[in-house]
Amino acid sequence: MAILVVGSVAFDAIETPSGRRERCLGGAATHFSLAASYFTPVRVIGVVGEDFGPEEEQVFTRRRIDTRGIEHVSGKSFFWSGSYMHNLNEAQTLRTDLNVFQSFSPKIPAEYRETEFLFLANIDPVLQADVRSKMPKVKMVCGDTMNYWIKDHAENLARVLTGLDALLINDTEAKMLAKENNLVLAARKILDMGPSALVVKHGEYGATAFFGERTFPGEYATVCPFRAPALPLAEVVDPTGAGDSFAGGFFGYIASQPELTPTVFRHAMFYGSVMGSFAVERFGTERLQQLDPKEIEERFALFRQLSHLE
Amino acid sequence: MAILVVGSVAFDAIETPSGRRERCLGGAATHFSLAASYFTPVRVIGVVGEDFGPEEEQVFTRRRIDTRGIEHVSGKSFFWSGSYMHNLNEAQTLRTDLNVFQSFSPKIPAEYRETEFLFLANIDPVLQADVRSKMPKVKMVCGDTMNYWIKDHAENLARVLTGLDALLINDTEAKMLAKENNLVLAARKILDMGPSALVVKHGEYGATAFFGERTFPGEYATVCPFRAPALPLAEVVDPTGAGDSFAGGFFGYIASQPELTPTVFRHAMFYGSVMGSFAVERFGTERLQQLDPKEIEERFALFRQLSHLE
Repeated sequence: MAILVVGSVAFDAIETPSGRRERCLGGAATHFSLAASYFTPVRVIGVVGEDFGPEEEQVFTRRRIDTRGIEHVSGKSFFWSGSYMHNLNEAQTLRTDLNVFQSFSPKIPAEYRETEFLFLANIDPVLQADVRSKMPKVKMVCGDTMNYWIKDHAENLARVLTGLDALLINDTEAKMLAKENNLVLAARKILDMGPSALVVKHGEYGATAFFGERTFPGEYATVCPFRAPALPLAEVVDPTGAGDSFAGGFFGYIASQPELTPTVFRHAMFYGSVMGSFAVERFGTERLQQLDPKEIEERFALFRQLSHLE
Repeated sequence: MAILVVGSVAFDAIETPSGRRERCLGGAATHFSLAASYFTPVRVIGVVGEDFGPEEEQVFTRRRIDTRGIEHVSGKSFFWSGSYMHNLNEAQTLRTDLNVFQSFSPKIPAEYRETEFLFLANIDPVLQADVRSKMPKVKMVCGDTMNYWIKDHAENLARVLTGLDALLINDTEAKMLAKENNLVLAARKILDMGPSALVVKHGEYGATAFFGERTFPGEYATVCPFRAPALPLAEVVDPTGAGDSFAGGFFGYIASQPELTPTVFRHAMFYGSVMGSFAVERFGTERLQQLDPKEIEERFALFRQLSHLE
């Protein structure tokens, strides 16, 4: 079934030890929807400026992503420039021009209203909550956030958390959100804030899912956490969007399945890691634009070999 | 079959956010041999002072560890004092008194000469190489080292590496040893230095094994790495000796098996993580002194549940 993603569509300038790109298509919604598109139909809500032309549009449409929710306004698209020259694990932001994103007010096209799966990418929690409230019949909602919203918009974020089935964030964000340095205790606190599941992304060390005691859609309940490995890579060309690609693979796989069972959740964690591992192999979305389903299955098998006893 | 371990037997003073101990039995050989003792007979070579009495001796003998190789000399045992108050992932050394360890010269009792498995814990590589050379018929040799030897005793360490089947170190040590920041490239360089396998311990994120192209004892050959998770713990009481406990579980399990197959290696990685997870639950060796084999199997099952798709 289809996923609706709300988030940024942007242009990025990126430099890493492997090279640089002056302008490549980026943004959380872009990475997410490309990764998810290999599993299930995807619909995007975002806003772009006049610099977003047919070439960029085609990146979505070639993957059959529904772009009717991408609003075109006058001005420039969101622009972000970052460097990983000193640390491949953390971007140094050189410049952020919100441009048309500054006044982004997500509008849900009528055709999107019945979408059963909703992903709230990292945007202002006020907007996340607004979209969530306009989709009362949605089956499952996942979301992301970042340090900026955790620190300075805690109350708004709290309202979003109560409406989430799963929150996907990284270690630093989880510890900051819970004000707790131990990851297990942090997870318990965050699960008390609303989500039924918390997926913590550890970068090169994979990801861990923690579960609350409440049941999940599909009568899913468990207390044992689950860890998916990351693939040891000889070269990380560009880490930008790895987390959003993880989310796309994770949620895309779930949306493609008839129901959410513990086994489906586990497979989804692996598909998240698989899509993250592809994303970082090239700059921007270059790798995610042209994957072969066979490559995805082969890499999934590699992840199994990497982590399974038998 | 039996393992011989050569390394430090010490007293530790430790403070962590969970409390403090003024004097507890420690040292790499102690943690290693206790962890390994749940899988296979263990023999220890080390040196202690007059402060090492019957009470300490019993910690070993209660686990049927052969202590005939522990030399008793006049003076005080190796003493280390460390604090984890600021960072549970890295000890801040407050004091190191080498004492009798300063002039440690490992002597291999005649009864130990035929031991088929040898673990060279973190000591001066000159001593590691010496012990290795005196055990020409050994079936498999694993070893550990640390930043101090990597930085200032590189040539001596290089000689040790050529005689190892597997090297077990942490991320920082691996990158320092290879002078390479990417872990996969670092692993390739280290495997070129001698060992057939490199096990990199990631602390709370588990461990990864990398394999060279040469075959292993037991006709073991593979190129795909293997990742074992660590157990997410709500409280890490004392991380001291976690790495040595990992090594003990890992190598103890291998020594207990009729041959080293890829499946045995993978199980060994899990048993390493299992013993590491127990070690940190209490101060010093408190937890490792009194484990029940049933607890070990239950935790092994938990690790499988934590990481396996089905």
